[in-house]
Amino acid sequence: MTIYFDNAATTFPKPESVVESMKHYISCVGSNVSRGSYSSAFDAGNIVYETREMLANLFHDNEPERIFFTRNVTESLNLVLKGMLKPEDHVLVSSMEHNAVMRPLHRLMEQKITFSRIPCTKEGYLITDSMEEAWQENTKAVVITHASNVSGSVMDLEAIADFCQQKGLSLIIDAAQTAGVLPIDVQRLLPDAVCFTGHKGLYGPQGMGGAWISKRLASTLKPLIEGGTGSLSDEEVQPEYLPDKFEAGTLNMPGIYGLNAALHWIKERGIEEIHDHEMKLTRQFLEKIESLKKINVVGPMTLENRTAVVSIKTSTMDLGQLAHCLAKDYGVATRSGMHCAPHAHKTLQSFPEGTVRFSFGYFNTEKEIEKTIKALKEIVG
Amino acid sequence: MTIYFDNAATTFPKPESVVESMKHYISCVGSNVSRGSYSSAFDAGNIVYETREMLANLFHDNEPERIFFTRNVTESLNLVLKGMLKPEDHVLVSSMEHNAVMRPLHRLMEQKITFSRIPCTKEGYLITDSMEEAWQENTKAVVITHASNVSGSVMDLEAIADFCQQKGLSLIIDAAQTAGVLPIDVQRLLPDAVCFTGHKGLYGPQGMGGAWISKRLASTLKPLIEGGTGSLSDEEVQPEYLPDKFEAGTLNMPGIYGLNAALHWIKERGIEEIHDHEMKLTRQFLEKIESLKKINVVGPMTLENRTAVVSIKTSTMDLGQLAHCLAKDYGVATRSGMHCAPHAHKTLQSFPEGTVRFSFGYFNTEKEIEKTIKALKEIVG
Repeated sequence: MTIYFDNAATTFPKPESVVESMKHYISCVGSNVSRGSYSSAFDAGNIVYETREMLANLFHDNEPERIFFTRNVTESLNLVLKGMLKPEDHVLVSSMEHNAVMRPLHRLMEQKITFSRIPCTKEGYLITDSMEEAWQENTKAVVITHASNVSGSVMDLEAIADFCQQKGLSLIIDAAQTAGVLPIDVQRLLPDAVCFTGHKGLYGPQGMGGAWISKRLASTLKPLIEGGTGSLSDEEVQPEYLPDKFEAGTLNMPGIYGLNAALHWIKERGIEEIHDHEMKLTRQFLEKIESLKKINVVGPMTLENRTAVVSIKTSTMDLGQLAHCLAKDYGVATRSGMHCAPHAHKTLQSFPEGTVRFSFGYFNTEKEIEKTIKALKEIVG
Repeated sequence: MTIYFDNAATTFPKPESVVESMKHYISCVGSNVSRGSYSSAFDAGNIVYETREMLANLFHDNEPERIFFTRNVTESLNLVLKGMLKPEDHVLVSSMEHNAVMRPLHRLMEQKITFSRIPCTKEGYLITDSMEEAWQENTKAVVITHASNVSGSVMDLEAIADFCQQKGLSLIIDAAQTAGVLPIDVQRLLPDAVCFTGHKGLYGPQGMGGAWISKRLASTLKPLIEGGTGSLSDEEVQPEYLPDKFEAGTLNMPGIYGLNAALHWIKERGIEEIHDHEMKLTRQFLEKIESLKKINVVGPMTLENRTAVVSIKTSTMDLGQLAHCLAKDYGVATRSGMHCAPHAHKTLQSFPEGTVRFSFGYFNTEKEIEKTIKALKEIVG
C-alpha cells in the first residue's frame, strides 16, 4: 500500500466525485460548449459557467468571466508574463521562484526584459524590506510565488500588495501551491493576475489550470493563443471580450467537469478544514523528525505561514537514493531533487544536492506519518 | 434519443475504453510522469511514451520524441506559427482555413508577417496551379488544412508537398479533421509540422492535442510556453531536447491515458475500416439529400477526396432555426453558422448566412441518416 506524500506535485487520490463527473461528461454529455444548438451543449455551458463562478468566488470575486482556463499554471504564468511585459520592462521576483516563472523570464531576456530577485531568508521567506532596494524606475510588476513548492514557506502577500500599490506595480501571484489551500482575496490584494492549477490544492484532474485576471490587465494583455472561440465566427481576429479573448480552441471539457466536482467537494468541507487536517499532519511530522538527529529540515520548522510541504536533507546518504529506498522498501512516495526550483534551493542552502520533499494532503493519515518516520529512522538512523 | 451528427466538432460517443483508461489513471495511478521515483510514476511514463510512439507511427514515423502534447490543435498551430515565423516572413494559406490558423496569422501581422490566400474552387479544393502565382520571394511556409471542417474537401497534400520541396518551403499541416481519418505520411510529404487534436478523428477526450515536428524545425522553433519539465531542474532555461522543449508544466495525464486507449481502439479497427463506415453514411446522406429540392449541398457532391462532413443550405428558412428545429423536434445534433471559418464560407459562397453542417462518425448508423433525411423533408420540404 503506497503512502502518497507527493501532494505538492499533484494531490492523490482525488475525490471520487471528480472521476464520476468526468465519466458523466464523456459518456453522457460529450459536446463542446457554446458551439452547438442541441441541449447537451447547453448543459456543458452551465457547468463551465458554474466552474468559473466558483473559482472567482474562491478568490473573493463575483465576476465569472475574470476566470479563464489553461492547461496548467505554467501556461497561465507564460500567458501573463509574455502578454504583459514589453522591451525594457523590469520585474521583481523572489529568490524562491519555480521554473514556471523563471524559465519564461529567461526567455524574455531576449526581448530586453530584465528581472531582479528579492532575497529571502534561509527558511524561504521574502525579506520584504528588500523590495524597495530591488525596485527600479522601469519595474512593472512583482511576480511572486504565494508559497514555495520546496519549503512550504508562505510569502507575506499583504506586505507585497501594499508595496505594489504604493509603487503602482502589477502584482502577479503564482498560486500553484495555495489555490484551495490558503485564502487569496483579490479585493484586498488587488493583484493583476492570480495563476493557479486545478490538480493540486483544488483536487481536480491534471490538465486543468487557469487564471483570474483584473479588469485593468485584461484589456491590455495579449493572448498567447488565438483561434476559434465559437464567438464572432465571421471574423478572423480574436474577440476582445472575456473569457473568449484567452480561450481559443476546444476547452478541456472532461477536465472542467472534474474540476467542477472538486470545487464542490472543497466547498462542502471548506478550505479551512482541509488546511487544518494537513497542518495537523505537518505538525506531527515536524515534531517527530526533530528526534532524528541525522536529518535536517530545510525551510521553516514552525507551523505559522507555511503549507503542508516539508523538505529534508541528510549528509549520510544520497537524497535520490533515500527517496528511492523510501518508495521501494516502504512504499512512501516523495520527491527528491530540485523540484524545478534551483534558486529556491540556493536560498535554502540545499543546492546542488537538493532535498527530499514530503507533501501532505487531505487523504493522508497520522498513521502514515508514523510509519514514514519509522522508515526514515531505519534508513538514515 | 439524440442523433449525434457533430463529429467534426468532437466525436461522440467515445469508445468505452477511453473513459475506463482515464478512470484507471485518476483512481489508481494519479502521479505525474518522470518527476517521481515511485512506481506509479514509472507506469505513467510508459503510457506517455507509448502514446507518443503510436502517434508517431500513425504519421509513418518511428521517433516518439517528435510528438509533443498540447491542449488542442489550436495551441499546436499557434506554437508552430508564432515560434517559427519572423518579421518580414510571408506564408501561403488556402482560402479554406479555420480561425485556428487565421487568427494567429492576423496577430502576427503586428510583427510584419504577411500571408496570401491560395484560391480554392467553390467545392473547397485548393487550385494547386495558383500556388506559384501566390508565392513571393519571402514566402517561408505553406500552412494548410488537410480537409475543410465546413465542406469536407480534402486538399491535394502531395501536390502541395511537391511545391514546398521545389521552393524550399516549410509545410505545416492542420490535421484537425484528418488525424485518424486519412493517412498522413511524413516520410512522403516531408512536412515540418503536423498539428492534430485528440478528440475528433482520434476518438480521445477533449483537452488533448499535439503535433509531430520535423528535426529541422524542432531545432529552431521557439517554445510558446516555458517552465518546469522535470528535466535539467538545476537550470533556469528551458531544455533544448525533445519533447521537453515544448512541454512545460504538468501534462494532461488523464487526457493522455484516454487518448492512449483511443489509439488502441483505432489500431484494432484500422483507420480504413472507420473511414469506410463513415463514407458509407456520407454516400447515403448525399444520395438521399439530392431528392430534397429545396436543399443544396455546399461543397463537393462526390465521395472522392472528402471526409464525412456535409454542409447544406436552403433559402426557405434561417439556418440557425433549421439546426434548432432539427435538435429540438428530432433530436438531431448538427452545427450551424460559420464553423470558425468565415473565409471558407466565402469560398463556398455561403457567407454570411453559413450552413448547417452534418458530420458523421464511426458510431452513427444508416438508420440515423434515414431519420434525418425524413426530418429534413418534414422541416424544409
